[in-house]
Amino acid sequence: MQVTNSASPSTRRRGRRPAGADTKAALIEAATAVFAEQGYDNATVRAIAARAGVDAAMVNHWFGGKEGLFGEAILKLPFNPRELVPVLLDGPRDQLGERIARTFLTVWDERGGGVFAALVRSVAAHEQAQHALRDLFIKHVMTPLVSEVSPDGDHLRATLVASQLIGMGMIRYVSQFEPLASTDIETVVTAVGPTIQRYLTGDIR
Amino acid sequence: MQVTNSASPSTRRRGRRPAGADTKAALIEAATAVFAEQGYDNATVRAIAARAGVDAAMVNHWFGGKEGLFGEAILKLPFNPRELVPVLLDGPRDQLGERIARTFLTVWDERGGGVFAALVRSVAAHEQAQHALRDLFIKHVMTPLVSEVSPDGDHLRATLVASQLIGMGMIRYVSQFEPLASTDIETVVTAVGPTIQRYLTGDIR
Repeated sequence: MQVTNSASPSTRRRGRRPAGADTKAALIEAATAVFAEQGYDNATVRAIAARAGVDAAMVNHWFGGKEGLFGEAILKLPFNPRELVPVLLDGPRDQLGERIARTFLTVWDERGGGVFAALVRSVAAHEQAQHALRDLFIKHVMTPLVSEVSPDGDHLRATLVASQLIGMGMIRYVSQFEPLASTDIETVVTAVGPTIQRYLTGDIR
Repeated sequence: MQVTNSASPSTRRRGRRPAGADTKAALIEAATAVFAEQGYDNATVRAIAARAGVDAAMVNHWFGGKEGLFGEAILKLPFNPRELVPVLLDGPRDQLGERIARTFLTVWDERGGGVFAALVRSVAAHEQAQHALRDLFIKHVMTPLVSEVSPDGDHLRATLVASQLIGMGMIRYVSQFEPLASTDIETVVTAVGPTIQRYLTGDIR
């Protein structure tokens, strides 16, 4: 994400309420400080908004909640998880598994893989980053997807999909097992898409 | 693994050739030192065997090679990968995926999950541990399994299986996403077994 940061922090703290990009930048700056001081679990949306000099409702408006703000400010995810679901749902339902695999591989291949490996290292080392990523992924991606497409709303489905995606990322970008590490995206999509499709809409119990 | 360690290192270095458990213990002690000094990639079987005062052939005999010695001496895996394949193959071929999932979950659940998380942290932080684990897994588990059961010997199959198993371990033991983190083993086996079965014997391209 590109942010502009023209107003000084002291201006914001005196209560000015910047709009749009300025609000987002102020929240990211405040969140970086508050998360560092208090950790993800203890930090509150109110404390972050107060430090940024904006209304707490702006956190939900711009980031969908504390976990979304953490994802953008600290984990620096290369996409907005809240924007994923409508994109993934746009197309034939029986190809949803393939679209999820293709989107995952395209996003992380474009970043060169090292970004995924860095994220895993950070998350493996910091328990609170794990909580944030779990909240983010479950709340903004998997729960909406399972509610929308599964026959039963079974939450096990969401974590099964997560297991295949994270494992694919580990093998392709972190451990770099060949041939999966350098197989072209569409071949991997053909192999893994049906797994994700079954986890979302098939018979799993 | 339990090892006895009655002979002193200096005795071994003077050329005594201990047998059985003593040889294994001597090799593990020598390997711990040589891997620490030279790293996995640079360490040679010859150097480790020389320091242990045993013949280099003993490394293959007891550990199946450098990667097996690293797995036992450094990664301290709770099982011997070379013993897995015959155990997994013992049973109906169309239930192989289920047996692999059940074995993986049983081994790591018994250790409380923290052992898996510690292994991932160690491997994520040390590139040479990644090489060792990759060599170990591919050489001693996946290549023999794929050769034995797949219709085509396609090595992509091995890394697909690895992706699902590692991802399951990440979600269950490291990130602890619910409900997969605490779902009973047989329910997970029913969900994940068919994925592994298809990766090994089904249509993947």
